[in-house]
Amino acid sequence: MNRLYHFPLSPFSRKVRLSLAEKRIEVELIEERYWEQDNDFLRRNPAGQIPVLRLGNKLMSESAAICEYLEEVQPSPPLMPRDADGRFEVRRLVGWFDDKFHVECTQKLLGERVFRKVMGTGYPDSTNVKAGSKAMRFHLDYMAHLLEKRRWLAGNELSLADFAAAAQLSCLDYISDVDWNRSEVVKDWYAKIKSRPAFRSLLADQVSGFRPPSHYANLDF
Amino acid sequence: MNRLYHFPLSPFSRKVRLSLAEKRIEVELIEERYWEQDNDFLRRNPAGQIPVLRLGNKLMSESAAICEYLEEVQPSPPLMPRDADGRFEVRRLVGWFDDKFHVECTQKLLGERVFRKVMGTGYPDSTNVKAGSKAMRFHLDYMAHLLEKRRWLAGNELSLADFAAAAQLSCLDYISDVDWNRSEVVKDWYAKIKSRPAFRSLLADQVSGFRPPSHYANLDF
Repeated sequence: MNRLYHFPLSPFSRKVRLSLAEKRIEVELIEERYWEQDNDFLRRNPAGQIPVLRLGNKLMSESAAICEYLEEVQPSPPLMPRDADGRFEVRRLVGWFDDKFHVECTQKLLGERVFRKVMGTGYPDSTNVKAGSKAMRFHLDYMAHLLEKRRWLAGNELSLADFAAAAQLSCLDYISDVDWNRSEVVKDWYAKIKSRPAFRSLLADQVSGFRPPSHYANLDF
Repeated sequence: MNRLYHFPLSPFSRKVRLSLAEKRIEVELIEERYWEQDNDFLRRNPAGQIPVLRLGNKLMSESAAICEYLEEVQPSPPLMPRDADGRFEVRRLVGWFDDKFHVECTQKLLGERVFRKVMGTGYPDSTNVKAGSKAMRFHLDYMAHLLEKRRWLAGNELSLADFAAAAQLSCLDYISDVDWNRSEVVKDWYAKIKSRPAFRSLLADQVSGFRPPSHYANLDF
């Protein structure tokens, strides 16, 4: 049986879950308290990060490399365009959300509000939370700028870029940190991606001690 | 004329410079003080990061996406294997060095010792420097573990994984922060990659106020 070692509010785990579900690759989800650096887990993945995917006999880490691999071995339905320019744009945006958005928004908001409590590393730092909220406005505006010219973030087809973005945003939506009123096009985009069957498992996630707001799993939010 | 907006001790710029040189794509190098967030620069790249590559009329950011693009439009000489498993391993290690190594070692050592001074953000934080030195030992051991079974980091052919690693290590070598005596195989690997013509421009880099040690540009170090 294929297995994904993950944590519900890890955006990188969510990105891989979305890719797997879209490509109809079934996996058993194993929740991993990766920050406890358990020896078994470190043997599977010396980087000590999640997600880790066991696909058949192959053990894989690094979410971007995993998603590219899934695209190569199971190209249908496609999550990358065929031309080099289109593929560049998808990868540029995956990098944008995995790196820049994650560092500037997700770590500062989710990291402070949820992971500090879950990992037991103290109280939220309000300077970080403020910086995260401010950065969110910039990122939502950048997404709106892209979506005014395109149906999806990297072009007119759904791609890994949309999953990378939705993975981060859905974690922040779980703690009500996304202002959906800021941009109509971004809200429409999220409604569209949220209604895909691949999204269902994310909307059912629960993290003990943190109850999602009622709009979190609501397709008509 | 193609142009690369870069900074000499930026590992991500170096990774792209190595790929361009290996594929014999000529570019004019423009040094960019990206942290000053000059308006012209932000127009070229809203992420405010380097490197930015102008290739013909195309303006590109995100080093991993740029390297994949170069591989697709100029596949020779190859920096990625042809099979999905081999490509996965290259991408996994590119992620390892771009993310994990960069955060745990480069930011903590180069960030504290060089960028604080260059950007004018205060004195080095010795806790970070110590953590960076400690992490370096783990990473050098991990590289040795890989290189005991392989000629290059991701397999028996030179790949983007070697460039991602050498880009980070060469920046740290500029400030004498790599203990080349820790592992014979790692030192041999670095000597091999350092002697490639693609590496020459990196060995000629100079950052004002920081003189590289004499072994930095020496092929027999």
